[in-house]
Amino acid sequence: MADFDLAIIGTGSGNSILDERYVDKRVAICEQGVFGGTCLNVGCIPTKMFVYAAGVAEQIRESARFGVDGRLDGVRWPDIVSRVFGRIDPLAGGGEQYRRSSPNVEVFASHTRFSGPDSGDGYRLHTDDGDEFTAEQVVIAAGARATVPQAILECGVPYHTSDTIMRISDLPEHLVIVGGGFVAAEFAHVFSALGSRVTIVLRGTTMLSHCDDTVCERFTDIAGKKWEIRSRRNIVSGESDGSGVSLRLDDGATLRGDVLLVATGRVPNGDRLDAHLAGVEVTDGLVTVDEFQRTTARNVFALGDVSSPYQLKHVANHEARVVKHNLLQDWDDTEALMPANHDNVPSAVFTEPQIACVGLTENEARAAGYRIRSKVQDYGDVAYGWAMEDSTGFAKLIVDDDTGLLLGAHIMGHQASSIIQPLIQAMAFGLPAQDMARGQYWIHPALPEVVENALLSLCGEPPWPRPRRH
Amino acid sequence: MADFDLAIIGTGSGNSILDERYVDKRVAICEQGVFGGTCLNVGCIPTKMFVYAAGVAEQIRESARFGVDGRLDGVRWPDIVSRVFGRIDPLAGGGEQYRRSSPNVEVFASHTRFSGPDSGDGYRLHTDDGDEFTAEQVVIAAGARATVPQAILECGVPYHTSDTIMRISDLPEHLVIVGGGFVAAEFAHVFSALGSRVTIVLRGTTMLSHCDDTVCERFTDIAGKKWEIRSRRNIVSGESDGSGVSLRLDDGATLRGDVLLVATGRVPNGDRLDAHLAGVEVTDGLVTVDEFQRTTARNVFALGDVSSPYQLKHVANHEARVVKHNLLQDWDDTEALMPANHDNVPSAVFTEPQIACVGLTENEARAAGYRIRSKVQDYGDVAYGWAMEDSTGFAKLIVDDDTGLLLGAHIMGHQASSIIQPLIQAMAFGLPAQDMARGQYWIHPALPEVVENALLSLCGEPPWPRPRRH
Repeated sequence: MADFDLAIIGTGSGNSILDERYVDKRVAICEQGVFGGTCLNVGCIPTKMFVYAAGVAEQIRESARFGVDGRLDGVRWPDIVSRVFGRIDPLAGGGEQYRRSSPNVEVFASHTRFSGPDSGDGYRLHTDDGDEFTAEQVVIAAGARATVPQAILECGVPYHTSDTIMRISDLPEHLVIVGGGFVAAEFAHVFSALGSRVTIVLRGTTMLSHCDDTVCERFTDIAGKKWEIRSRRNIVSGESDGSGVSLRLDDGATLRGDVLLVATGRVPNGDRLDAHLAGVEVTDGLVTVDEFQRTTARNVFALGDVSSPYQLKHVANHEARVVKHNLLQDWDDTEALMPANHDNVPSAVFTEPQIACVGLTENEARAAGYRIRSKVQDYGDVAYGWAMEDSTGFAKLIVDDDTGLLLGAHIMGHQASSIIQPLIQAMAFGLPAQDMARGQYWIHPALPEVVENALLSLCGEPPWPRPRRH
Repeated sequence: MADFDLAIIGTGSGNSILDERYVDKRVAICEQGVFGGTCLNVGCIPTKMFVYAAGVAEQIRESARFGVDGRLDGVRWPDIVSRVFGRIDPLAGGGEQYRRSSPNVEVFASHTRFSGPDSGDGYRLHTDDGDEFTAEQVVIAAGARATVPQAILECGVPYHTSDTIMRISDLPEHLVIVGGGFVAAEFAHVFSALGSRVTIVLRGTTMLSHCDDTVCERFTDIAGKKWEIRSRRNIVSGESDGSGVSLRLDDGATLRGDVLLVATGRVPNGDRLDAHLAGVEVTDGLVTVDEFQRTTARNVFALGDVSSPYQLKHVANHEARVVKHNLLQDWDDTEALMPANHDNVPSAVFTEPQIACVGLTENEARAAGYRIRSKVQDYGDVAYGWAMEDSTGFAKLIVDDDTGLLLGAHIMGHQASSIIQPLIQAMAFGLPAQDMARGQYWIHPALPEVVENALLSLCGEPPWPRPRRH
């Protein structure tokens, strides 16, 4: 039985741990699927490539109001799929090849589980292919998986999740999406912009209900004009009807579609590792970690979606950097261990309009007892918004009235994920909103002026610029 | 003869001075043209509306490589012009109407000049319409004007400048542009994307020669593939040939075009005010000001293009805020006076690809004696760049090796004017490059990752994240 210094379960962010400091360690890398994890293969990266193509199609349809007569002759769905996966699949393959060629690394291409607690020589693990090995240190980076409601599983109707929908052979005439979160919002945009009719079945009344109310309400309003939304509805049963699916809702209605996409959330994969045998605490699949990404079992770390409520690649990457450092320290030396920083974690939804958020929602800020000021500034108030003929974009900022610090920023509109970055930066470094507004130049007439104007509305004209630095 | 407390010459940024603190002052506002100045009427705002339409047309032409078959059936130039000026012209008219309706303001709609020095009762001024008045305080905000080479003026050939080109009646088949600065770069993009053939006549060898060499060289390279560039050439004479112009270059060649756009720079209007009579120092049209925006004549301030080498609206706006404050202080009280801040002034060129810059170029940084590190990071290295199929965009960052502080940032590519803002902010507030890279989250897979990656390349992985704030 092979003995390793380190075993890494999962090759998303987990695959970024090995650097030159690890060349003398014997490492087992365990991957049951393809190398690269969710982000590369079925998440952030391919979706954004589809989203970009969708944006191009939408731009063409809306060109006339800019005095430009574009016509959309068609969408070559198979070519879009080929462009995306022709680029991504070789990366995943190359990633695996690279690891297999490393003399100190062994790849186990099969599902891997713990066999028991630390025996003194390390943890024993085994794969579904029958391999067994030990590892002194283990990193659990096994990610998360799409959930599917019981009623859909039970009725046996064919369905897709985000894992498979991007590789379907044809653009569906009518796509039914169950769920109203970010995955639903992104694919609804992709497929509708490319030409599908989209129906969304929601349990609640709004899409993106985790967002600030202003985002959530305004987005749902826009969504309702583009897509058919069946709110307060659940699917109770369904059947395949030859070319598509026929779904029964809990109000008795029947909904027919050509393709069904289930986007009802993702659960962490910690329940599939027999981790309890090693003393790793797992709750509903979520591996418990402390601020140093240590699990409850000595020398076992975890990172990314399997242990994080965020399920965001930039968070997983940060945690991977933390684990990369901490694996090389003494387990107990909290002075030497690096803590993860989960303050001011931003996120974005690459739907249309794009959405980006950081910090507290208005409700969260009020519930936390802050005295706040908030401002919703429309894109249409600034010159770049005029140029775009924008009528829906906005930046909502929330400031602590006592300290002048930003508590949250919620932007919906073109390039929201770009123009939010200075706000993330201000929050991370404690820059007061008024200083942010007037202590720097904002290029006229660029899009970030919407942020500048929101800040000024909140803070007023300062009596004085910041001190000269001559 | 009317006596005013304050006279403001020019209604660009000058028009933003009056706020509630000025309601008890008698104010003369002098505007020889339309209200709103260059930015609103013939500069930033209308050009960006044309640029946006141009971008839509270009997107349609390039759609096929995203699997989307768009066709550009045509461009309705007159509709584009109507859309832009149908929005802007009423704003200019409304601005004038608003001032005329203010009980404490009188509008002089004619060219205004100084008649002499401060008589003790204030400065005497007179208009070309024959009005005379005095003012205790004067703000010179008279802007700048397009220059035209002597050879073009002398030969009498019809030409346009940025003041008029946006209102021509038809899209020219072939546009000849003289000059290679930002005005030339923006209009070359607008007209070529909308369907004109474009020829550029350059005195030097590169376009945008004020930019960092990497920007300048790469942009000129791209430009040379889209537009015909005649470099190291001057126009020596020309004639109107019925439907267009025929220009003689100094290499003996003849260049024919349907429309001629002169974009050879702008000179400040300080030479047209008889300002020397009031004791205001003016050099080549540029009004001399100190850090408080005071001219050399007591109680006379100046702001914006007439006194600033920047010729940027965001700088003029800042100076207007400074003057707005300083007019209400004692002229000599340098403790009470607000200094203007001209550190880290960014600028953008809304051509294709878009360009944004702040701080020193690499050459400037080296000449200033800094030990520097610089990094050019391609858009194509990050996921959003993949999605866009970007092959030309980049962010170039220059860091002071001794302090770790950013010295300059130069970005060419999609939304450069947005993704540069966190860098402007970092420079304004002295945030070291390494802290900027790792002390905040960068949304994956958003476009600002190109900045994050450039920072990381320059700074390496820091050994430790910044201190926890628990």
